[in-house]
Amino acid sequence: MAKQKDGFVERITPQSEDFSRWYTDVIKMADMVDYSDVKGAMVIKYYGYGIWELMQREMDDRFKATGHKNAYFPLLIPKSLLEKEAEHVEGFAPEVAWVTKGGGEELAEPLAIRPTSETIFCSMYSKWIQSHRDLPVLLNQWCNVLRWEKSTRPFLRTSEFLWQEGHTVHATEQEAEEETKRMLGVYVDFAENVLAIPVISGRKSEKEKFAGAMHTYTMEALMLDGKALQMGTSHNLGQNFSKGFDIQFLDKDDQLKYAWQTSWGTSTRMIGGIIMVHGDERGLRLPPKVAPVQCIVVPVAQHKEGVLDAADKLCGELKAAGIRAEVDSRDQSPGWKFNEWELKGVPVRIEIGPRDIENGECVVFRRDICEKQSEPLAGITEKINGLLADIQAGMLQRARDFREAHTFEATDWNGFMEGIEQGHGFVRAMWCGDAQCEADIKEKTGVTTRCMPFEQKQLSDVCVHCGKPAKTMMYFAKSY
Amino acid sequence: MAKQKDGFVERITPQSEDFSRWYTDVIKMADMVDYSDVKGAMVIKYYGYGIWELMQREMDDRFKATGHKNAYFPLLIPKSLLEKEAEHVEGFAPEVAWVTKGGGEELAEPLAIRPTSETIFCSMYSKWIQSHRDLPVLLNQWCNVLRWEKSTRPFLRTSEFLWQEGHTVHATEQEAEEETKRMLGVYVDFAENVLAIPVISGRKSEKEKFAGAMHTYTMEALMLDGKALQMGTSHNLGQNFSKGFDIQFLDKDDQLKYAWQTSWGTSTRMIGGIIMVHGDERGLRLPPKVAPVQCIVVPVAQHKEGVLDAADKLCGELKAAGIRAEVDSRDQSPGWKFNEWELKGVPVRIEIGPRDIENGECVVFRRDICEKQSEPLAGITEKINGLLADIQAGMLQRARDFREAHTFEATDWNGFMEGIEQGHGFVRAMWCGDAQCEADIKEKTGVTTRCMPFEQKQLSDVCVHCGKPAKTMMYFAKSY
Repeated sequence: MAKQKDGFVERITPQSEDFSRWYTDVIKMADMVDYSDVKGAMVIKYYGYGIWELMQREMDDRFKATGHKNAYFPLLIPKSLLEKEAEHVEGFAPEVAWVTKGGGEELAEPLAIRPTSETIFCSMYSKWIQSHRDLPVLLNQWCNVLRWEKSTRPFLRTSEFLWQEGHTVHATEQEAEEETKRMLGVYVDFAENVLAIPVISGRKSEKEKFAGAMHTYTMEALMLDGKALQMGTSHNLGQNFSKGFDIQFLDKDDQLKYAWQTSWGTSTRMIGGIIMVHGDERGLRLPPKVAPVQCIVVPVAQHKEGVLDAADKLCGELKAAGIRAEVDSRDQSPGWKFNEWELKGVPVRIEIGPRDIENGECVVFRRDICEKQSEPLAGITEKINGLLADIQAGMLQRARDFREAHTFEATDWNGFMEGIEQGHGFVRAMWCGDAQCEADIKEKTGVTTRCMPFEQKQLSDVCVHCGKPAKTMMYFAKSY
Repeated sequence: MAKQKDGFVERITPQSEDFSRWYTDVIKMADMVDYSDVKGAMVIKYYGYGIWELMQREMDDRFKATGHKNAYFPLLIPKSLLEKEAEHVEGFAPEVAWVTKGGGEELAEPLAIRPTSETIFCSMYSKWIQSHRDLPVLLNQWCNVLRWEKSTRPFLRTSEFLWQEGHTVHATEQEAEEETKRMLGVYVDFAENVLAIPVISGRKSEKEKFAGAMHTYTMEALMLDGKALQMGTSHNLGQNFSKGFDIQFLDKDDQLKYAWQTSWGTSTRMIGGIIMVHGDERGLRLPPKVAPVQCIVVPVAQHKEGVLDAADKLCGELKAAGIRAEVDSRDQSPGWKFNEWELKGVPVRIEIGPRDIENGECVVFRRDICEKQSEPLAGITEKINGLLADIQAGMLQRARDFREAHTFEATDWNGFMEGIEQGHGFVRAMWCGDAQCEADIKEKTGVTTRCMPFEQKQLSDVCVHCGKPAKTMMYFAKSY
């Protein structure tokens, strides 16, 4: 274990003492975000934004590989447009920020800052789509959205946030359903293989689905405090919007038909997930695939001749091998730097000093398990590349183990309550599907339905709460 | 020359007849943008957005290579913050859209949708910067901004547009000035070597500089109708904002000093420049470096056995060689497809039919000069890669030739007027530097000062308009 000096870690609230304060300490001290002068709006600093850029690149490649293209639709949506789909406006209107003045004049009609963009996409789709030849339409956009929130937390719930939103149009119900599931699959692959976050995927209850959707699929991850985080959702909109916005096409059989639609989104909220799934008492631990700095090179006794040169040379070799590496040559002690880069979650640290150089060696520290050992400088880039892959895989495995250890199965109400109290995690149980029963469970326990997993098991024949015939296995948890 | 069939081109207004209508015909028919339900807001369709994505990648790489990092600052700026720098708010307040309601309630203080983000960056910089060790700060953000415009044109002037804005902070005036010029240099390199648009670079007059800046550098390009387009600007903000926002740092000499700042920006407006510098009667001509499709493969007699397979194989080889290639196998005639891809400005088209396949050949059409010839299929990828480089270089050269042929030098007022009337282009002439003289010239001719070029010549000793002693050589033009 590295020695802890210079006081960084002492200033982070321990996870066990107050997880919520640990979270805000870490994001602030790791320089990910800061609070702005507008309540609920965050400034994403470059270290936090660098993570988002890497996430964007990985996701965008996957969207394009599945045939989607990016476009950009306007920020402002006229009130009348937002109101065209009844459930949708009911769901979003309370959270909308309204522009009422522009260019020194009162506007005739208030304009909503987009809380999501179904309505403006649909207004264009009704112009663009005439024939089955125009289908499918497979668009995505990367943008900011705004939802007026009463209580906010950086990344997890802020008024403005960054996201991507896919909006697709199809000729048949089946194609739309396939697309909805395909994109949830893309999200699951991204969460597990890039963010190293294992997820439960499945369908939302009627109450928890997206306002205006026929149904919503979701992926849910378990945080270290035992709460669930919804990481991404994919909605089958059915014909709800195509009917509200008159999106009709002439099909091959010469019939005029309403189109079938989907929408799907993920946001900067996922960064909160990375922090709360992987972080520890020293701060962040970043999965190598989204770490802006994958390997930090810290020169030891850097004032001595040849040390900085050796560090620069090593860093150059790492970069040439495709590793995101940097040298930290600031005028601070090595111990101070060790602590800072551990706090920032950099997966690998290399320490190199005069004796190491003499011996043709360096010291390699891996952040995930906080162990270090000497390695020969010869072949170091292959070594580090291998180590980064190991760390990526190990982080996913540890997160999976944690989730399994914090997932409980209940077949009766006592078991359910025990699971919640002892476990701080997911409880899976059979459920009747009734909205009132769902509300009662929430009222009694603070726990909400997370999803009906695609992988179902018949744990019993009756609802864990009300005893009526069971319709589905459901994951329950407290959630963000 | 390819035969023109199927009526596409006939529907584009000729440039010579009405350049402005030609522009709107092209952007609409080439599927770059559409108009939304909000006045002055455009939908950037995927073909237009694809160009922007390529531009972003090229610029972002250059920003990072010069030491900048990306961050994200909030969309909404409190009124009181916007008002902290007097000239700045005076310049921007008339164009601001105001949010006055959120979450169902009237806001205590109106929030501006950012027209530009100096004020919100500065409010954070005043918190973050304490010591000379914190400097320089070199940040950029990619985002949307909004300026309420009375008359709008897609890409050139819209209420909402996409851009990047760099905001940097330095310890000395000299460093800030170097940064201001460095980033204009990055823009010039990008314009010429990526967009194939030659630019005149220099300094803006006092009247034309950015609201709140000490001075502004600009790059100006000449459109085919003889009007200038400002393509990007870089501002030395001096200490204007650091004094308004109290951005002070403790310098090495233990003195508390106000910081020196810069900001610089380019936007989707540049896409308008690409269209108006390179377009012709058939539509767009895209520089290969920003063409979403660089090479379109059109199968001829595609119903015949082996044709589609050969087209797909060829396309696969092109892609493997790093060329953005696609096969157009839609159920349309080859002539229809030729016209469409010419309209969309794809740099190279390959036609391949049964006879070509038999002969081991294909037909290669280059969009820039609209010529085609047969080429052997063997070694075709190297051929196309070379051709794309030739087209890129040729487009820059032709644009440069056009600009030279439309730039006039005037040493007296008659010559100035002649230059404007016959030339439709830049007029360079000596100028006294007086704001009233500048206003008079605009009043009489509709021509504005574009920039005092870095490369100065002493054309005469007196101002071309008022006859007072000349201070500088200035470029004048009508402008967008």
